[in-house]
Amino acid sequence: MRMSTKPNTPKGMRDFLPHDVMRRNHIMGIMKTQFERFGFLPIETPAMERRELLLGKYGDEGDRLVFKVLNTGEKVKKADLEALKNGELSRFGNSLSDKAMRYDLTVPFARFVVQHQNELSLPFKRYQMQPVWRADRPQHGRFQEFTQCDVDAIGSDSLLLELEYIQMADAIFEDLKLSGCTLRINHRKVLEAIARLASAGTETTRFFAILDKLDKVGWDEVKRLLLDEEYNIDIIDSIQNVLADKNTADQLDALKKLIGSSTDVEGPLQDLGLLFSNLEQLNSTKVIFDWTLARGLNYYTGTIFEISAPKQVSVGSIGAGGRYDNLTEVFGMKDMSGIGISFGLDRIELVLSELDLFPSSLYTSVDVLVVNFSMELMKALFPYIGELRKQGKRVFVYPSPSKLKKQLGLANQLHIPHALIMGEQEWKDQSCTLKDLRTGEQSTILLGDLTKYSWF
Amino acid sequence: MRMSTKPNTPKGMRDFLPHDVMRRNHIMGIMKTQFERFGFLPIETPAMERRELLLGKYGDEGDRLVFKVLNTGEKVKKADLEALKNGELSRFGNSLSDKAMRYDLTVPFARFVVQHQNELSLPFKRYQMQPVWRADRPQHGRFQEFTQCDVDAIGSDSLLLELEYIQMADAIFEDLKLSGCTLRINHRKVLEAIARLASAGTETTRFFAILDKLDKVGWDEVKRLLLDEEYNIDIIDSIQNVLADKNTADQLDALKKLIGSSTDVEGPLQDLGLLFSNLEQLNSTKVIFDWTLARGLNYYTGTIFEISAPKQVSVGSIGAGGRYDNLTEVFGMKDMSGIGISFGLDRIELVLSELDLFPSSLYTSVDVLVVNFSMELMKALFPYIGELRKQGKRVFVYPSPSKLKKQLGLANQLHIPHALIMGEQEWKDQSCTLKDLRTGEQSTILLGDLTKYSWF
Repeated sequence: MRMSTKPNTPKGMRDFLPHDVMRRNHIMGIMKTQFERFGFLPIETPAMERRELLLGKYGDEGDRLVFKVLNTGEKVKKADLEALKNGELSRFGNSLSDKAMRYDLTVPFARFVVQHQNELSLPFKRYQMQPVWRADRPQHGRFQEFTQCDVDAIGSDSLLLELEYIQMADAIFEDLKLSGCTLRINHRKVLEAIARLASAGTETTRFFAILDKLDKVGWDEVKRLLLDEEYNIDIIDSIQNVLADKNTADQLDALKKLIGSSTDVEGPLQDLGLLFSNLEQLNSTKVIFDWTLARGLNYYTGTIFEISAPKQVSVGSIGAGGRYDNLTEVFGMKDMSGIGISFGLDRIELVLSELDLFPSSLYTSVDVLVVNFSMELMKALFPYIGELRKQGKRVFVYPSPSKLKKQLGLANQLHIPHALIMGEQEWKDQSCTLKDLRTGEQSTILLGDLTKYSWF
Repeated sequence: MRMSTKPNTPKGMRDFLPHDVMRRNHIMGIMKTQFERFGFLPIETPAMERRELLLGKYGDEGDRLVFKVLNTGEKVKKADLEALKNGELSRFGNSLSDKAMRYDLTVPFARFVVQHQNELSLPFKRYQMQPVWRADRPQHGRFQEFTQCDVDAIGSDSLLLELEYIQMADAIFEDLKLSGCTLRINHRKVLEAIARLASAGTETTRFFAILDKLDKVGWDEVKRLLLDEEYNIDIIDSIQNVLADKNTADQLDALKKLIGSSTDVEGPLQDLGLLFSNLEQLNSTKVIFDWTLARGLNYYTGTIFEISAPKQVSVGSIGAGGRYDNLTEVFGMKDMSGIGISFGLDRIELVLSELDLFPSSLYTSVDVLVVNFSMELMKALFPYIGELRKQGKRVFVYPSPSKLKKQLGLANQLHIPHALIMGEQEWKDQSCTLKDLRTGEQSTILLGDLTKYSWF
C-alpha cells in the first residue's frame, strides 16, 4: 500500500488550490452571467464519448491526441495483437477501447443536438463550461486537461447572432476589467474566393491550412509554402497592397472589386459590411477585419473570428469561433446552421493574472474567525454563530483551543478580515470582542447585537 | 465520416439538458453556500490520477471498477502479452495504462494534502464538487459518471467538527426544503469493541464487512454470516435487547456497562454522549445513534455517519462520512486526523425530484423574449436591449423575423415570462409593448422607460 515516492498529479494535469478555484470561478461566474443575459441555457455532456464518435472528427493530428479509455474486464481479451505486431498502434488501441475522453465541446454538442432533437426547441442557444483532455506534450501554458467555455446558437442563420456574439464578448471583457482585446473577423466564403483566385484548382483546405500558420511562422514562410503548392503569390501581394492602410469599409469595397466577380461572395461581403456598420458601443474590445484569418477547423462555413489578448501578454488566442452550416450533418442531421464561440478559461486566467486584474476581495472567502479558548465557550457561542451563518456570514470556528497567536496566524494566512474573541469574563458579560484584523481596531459587542453589527 | 446509427452517449453516462443543469446547480449552489458559511474553501483535482496511486486503495472490487486510460503513441508497445496470455487481465491493462480516472474525491484529496503540504495552513477545510467515474454495471439510479460533493477538515481531532458537520448537513437540507432525513451515527472504536467481544480473535474488518450488508440483506442473513465466521451471536442478541426502546443517553449508558471494560472505548462513548447532548436546534434532520452502522471503507477510525433520505423515497444513503486518523499515511504523511463527508449529488437530485421539491422559478432562465419583426427594428432596439442586460435582465432576442405565434411558442417552451414586442408604428412612437405571458396582460411603455419598469 505505501508508495515509495512523493505522490503527485500526472504530467500535464493540475490541482487547483483555493485561490486558483476562486480565480477560475470569478471568470466563469462573469461568463455565466453574460451568457444568460444573452439568452443562453446551460447543458453538460459526459467526460467520455463513444470512441468511434470522436475519432475522425479532428484530423489525423487530433486523433492522435484523443485519450482512449481502456475497456474493463474480459473485454481486453479482444486486443488486436495482429495490429500491434504490424505497428498499427492506433488500430491496436481501438481494439481495447470503446470510449474516449472529450477532446472539445463542439463534437459532443453536435451529438447532443442530434440525440435530443425532439426535446429541444429551435433556435437553441446553449452554453457549456467543462474540461477537455488532449494528450498533448505538456509545456508552458499547455495542459492535458483544460476548460473550455462554449456558447453555440443553432437553428438560425441570422446575422443578428454575429452581432450579439461580439456584444457578448465585449461585455465579458468589460466585466473582467480586461481592455485591449482584439477581435478579428473574416468570412470563409471570402477566403475561399481568394483561394480560388490564387489557385488553378478549387481545393481550398490546403490554402486555409497554410494561412493558419501565419501567426506562428510569419508572411515570408507562408508565401514560400503557398508557392510550393503553386498558388499565385501575385494575387496575395496585390490584396495585401490594396487593403493596406484602409479603414474597414474601404477594405471591403476594394475586396469587392478584386474578388466580387466570384459567385456567392457578394452576400458575405455585404454581411461583413453590415456587421462593421453596427459595431458601435463596444467598450473593451477592438473589432477588425482580417482577410488572413483562416481558423484551423474544417466545419466553419461563414463568418469566423478570433480574439487575442492585449499585446503585452503573449498567450495568443483566448477565444475563437465562427458560423457553420453543417455541424450535425456527420451525425445524419442536415441544414442546421449555427454559430459558436469557445473561450479558453485557462488562458484568460493567465492573462488576468499577468495583468493583475483579479480583485483582491476575491481571496476573502471567510468573513470571520471565531477564536477558540475552550470547548465550553464554543458550545455557548454556537447559537450566535448559527445566527451569523443564517445571515450569510462565512464563519471559521477554530476547531480546538490553542494559543491566540496561532489562531490569528491562520486568519492572516486565509485573508480572514475579522476575529471574534470571547473569554470567560466576556461570556459572563454576554459580550465579545470583534477585531478587524486589517486595521487592528477592536469593538466590544453584546452577543445579542452581533447580527445587527455593521461589519465592513 | 458519416455514422450509420443515431449517435448517443456511452452506456451509463448522461447528458444534462438545461433543466437538469438548473436542478443540479440549485443543489450545488445551496451546498456551496453552506460549505462556505462553515469556513470551507474550494479545491479541484484532475480527472485523472497516476494509475498506481489509485489502484490498491479501494479493495479488489474497487480496483476492478477503476477506469484506466490507455497510454498514447509508442507506449502501447509495452503491452504485457505474457500477462494477457495467462489471463492476468489486470496486469495486462496496467502495462498499457499510466493514468486512471478519479474514482472518488477522498484518495485524490489525500494525495493533494501530501503534495501541497507546504502551501496549506492547518487546520485545512476544503470542499470539492466534481464527477467521479466507476465501471459499474449501469442500472436504475446507478451511473458510471456521477458527482460527489465532499467536505473534509484535516489537521484537528476536535469533536467540534463533528458538531459543525451535523449542523451543516441540517442547514443544507433545510435550504433544500428536504425534511425527514435521518443521520445515523456510530463510532468505529465502539464497533471494534463489540466485534472483539463477539469474536475469539481481534480481526474486526470481516465483522464490519458483514454488518455493512445489513441494509441490503436484513438481520437474519447478517446473523447467519456472522455465525459462519464463528462470531458469538449471543452477544449481538444481548446488545440488541439491551438497546431496544431506549433513548440515546440510556443506550450509551447500557453500552458502557456491556463493553466499557474494553480499553479505549470509554473516550468514544463519552464523545458520542457529548455529541448527542449538543444536538439542539436541528431543523430538518433527525440524528440517531445506530450501533449497527459500519460503513464500508477501511480508513475510518472514529465517528462514522450516514444520511438516509426520507423513507418514502427508496434511494438509500444520500451522504456519508466519518473521522479518520491516517488518511494520508499511505502517502507517507502520518498523524493527520480529519473528518469528511460526501454528499451524492445525483441521489439528492433524485430525492428532490420524487418529492417535487424544486422551486418552479428554477426553470425560468430567460426574463424576456424580444420579438423580431425585422432586422432594422432589431438594430434600433439594440441600445435598449443592451441597457436591459446591463441591468441584469436575461434577454433572448429572436434571431430572425418570423410569425409572432412561432416566436411566442418558443417563449412558452422556454418558460420565458415576458415578451417585448415592437412594430413599425411603435418605433415611430418610441414605445413598445411588454406582454406578461403568464397572465396575458399587456402594457405600452416608452422605450426610454424600459429599464425603470417594474417587471414582476
